[in-house]
Amino acid sequence: MENINIAVVDDLLRQQQENFISAIFLRDETISCNDDIWTDGKGGNGRTVVFCDGEVFEKVAVNFSNIKGDNLPPAATNKRPDLKGHSFNAVGLSIVSHPKNPFVPTSHENLRFFSTTSSENPQWWFGGGFDLTPYVGFESDAVEWHRAAYNACCCIGEEYYLTFKDLCDHYFFIKHRKEHRGIGGLFFDDFNDFEFERCLEFVKAVGEKFLSSYMKILDRRQDHSFSKDDILFKNYRRGRYAEFNLVLDRGTLFGLQFGGRIESILSSLPPIVHWPHSISQEFKSREANLLSDYLTPKDWLNLNPKTISE
Amino acid sequence: MENINIAVVDDLLRQQQENFISAIFLRDETISCNDDIWTDGKGGNGRTVVFCDGEVFEKVAVNFSNIKGDNLPPAATNKRPDLKGHSFNAVGLSIVSHPKNPFVPTSHENLRFFSTTSSENPQWWFGGGFDLTPYVGFESDAVEWHRAAYNACCCIGEEYYLTFKDLCDHYFFIKHRKEHRGIGGLFFDDFNDFEFERCLEFVKAVGEKFLSSYMKILDRRQDHSFSKDDILFKNYRRGRYAEFNLVLDRGTLFGLQFGGRIESILSSLPPIVHWPHSISQEFKSREANLLSDYLTPKDWLNLNPKTISE
Repeated sequence: MENINIAVVDDLLRQQQENFISAIFLRDETISCNDDIWTDGKGGNGRTVVFCDGEVFEKVAVNFSNIKGDNLPPAATNKRPDLKGHSFNAVGLSIVSHPKNPFVPTSHENLRFFSTTSSENPQWWFGGGFDLTPYVGFESDAVEWHRAAYNACCCIGEEYYLTFKDLCDHYFFIKHRKEHRGIGGLFFDDFNDFEFERCLEFVKAVGEKFLSSYMKILDRRQDHSFSKDDILFKNYRRGRYAEFNLVLDRGTLFGLQFGGRIESILSSLPPIVHWPHSISQEFKSREANLLSDYLTPKDWLNLNPKTISE
Repeated sequence: MENINIAVVDDLLRQQQENFISAIFLRDETISCNDDIWTDGKGGNGRTVVFCDGEVFEKVAVNFSNIKGDNLPPAATNKRPDLKGHSFNAVGLSIVSHPKNPFVPTSHENLRFFSTTSSENPQWWFGGGFDLTPYVGFESDAVEWHRAAYNACCCIGEEYYLTFKDLCDHYFFIKHRKEHRGIGGLFFDDFNDFEFERCLEFVKAVGEKFLSSYMKILDRRQDHSFSKDDILFKNYRRGRYAEFNLVLDRGTLFGLQFGGRIESILSSLPPIVHWPHSISQEFKSREANLLSDYLTPKDWLNLNPKTISE
């Protein structure tokens, strides 16, 4: 039973990796692609695919892994600390897309499945979510993105959207800047609230909505003309992305601390980052608007939480 | 007595800040300078000076602060955990210089003085050091730098050079890359091995040798012609600098976690960083040579440790 679950998740996430890769090639035919299928000699394997220097995308990482371990790290579960130290199997897909056009947002998705194998009573759970980081905000994109997040939650109940949106807003918060990283989306962990098939159906929907919604936004903004200043502003704001990933992201820090494929772990970093000491009045004003109008948690879908949770 | 010590250190570090600022202006007359004299409303004050977009320097931060606190952070002392939680006074000077020419190394110095004020038996100690991060190695620069480090230690005994050099090599090690950040120099903490005046004389020498040695190296390499590739390689290697500061540097993380002047804390970050997914064969070969010939701890002064410690 346990093995069947893992094989089904493995298949699903590999298929979603393939779908995302196809969507990139479709939009950026001449992009460089580094496709690395690997095994770790300890029963683990994966595929690290990194695109770079394209016409549309500066850098896109689409990483799948299926690994086994003897000692479940504490970072892997919040809700079940008693499982720490058990042997485990972890399957995961992680996607980060940094496009070239500053009017197209950076997107991130992670989908992961953990199962413990040494316990008398094997446990499993899903984690992951998706979030969007615009450099120039568009209300219609934010609504599109959150509509996708909302729709992904339909098969488990729409109240989950509000819960997972809130978790996303909390997680992607750059504490030392007192800024949210983006407009959020979904974030969930230790998710096994329903039988396996229904949880899997939800995770499948998250992956599908992520792909379709991001590509819709990309296609909509891709031909927007941009200036040198737009690029400089994007490179400056990407510093926040690097700060979040290097200082705060649990997955990145876990990877760095416990050793692993450094190039895969750090493939999420933006390709070009500027840390100027000060920025112009014009950039300050752009930033203030971006922060207040987009990077502050909002009820993008005009839902009335009371109606939904009743 | 305690106050006199602090005033003397305060004077010395302010003077050394001034000297470094003058040395920058002397070499880069038209560089932009952001000079911010501040007080924190809690008895603390400082001067954050950041140069940017010059002909010679991309970004240089020269930050002085003198702050008071009620609760000595654990990060402030390794040797005396019993002092954790005492009220304290901390005076510090921190300098990071990122030059434009890839043949000129990045340099870093920190000098700090802590004293506890609430203990019945007040304690004080110095910490700090300096280190150098080349993008292109030159043996004569490495020898010059370590000669300066050695000479700074003369007033306390040359065996300290070997100890502090070793501490520096250990501290500036990027664990997740298994790479040293640079060619090292000096690193010391909880230093009060002699009476106050002699310790102060040592710290003064560290600051003076840092300034004279770095400017000598800068003047020597400043006119070296460089290509676009040299710049790209420097921007790529500066990613390592950003990773060290954001993932590992105790001072930076302490500042970010406990709140503070974010722009001052992060002024050490390189102005432009590239995180490409892969690098060319030529860059791989440059990097391999830099790592093996320079970023591996070496006995640059051809000292025989046995002779020195006897």
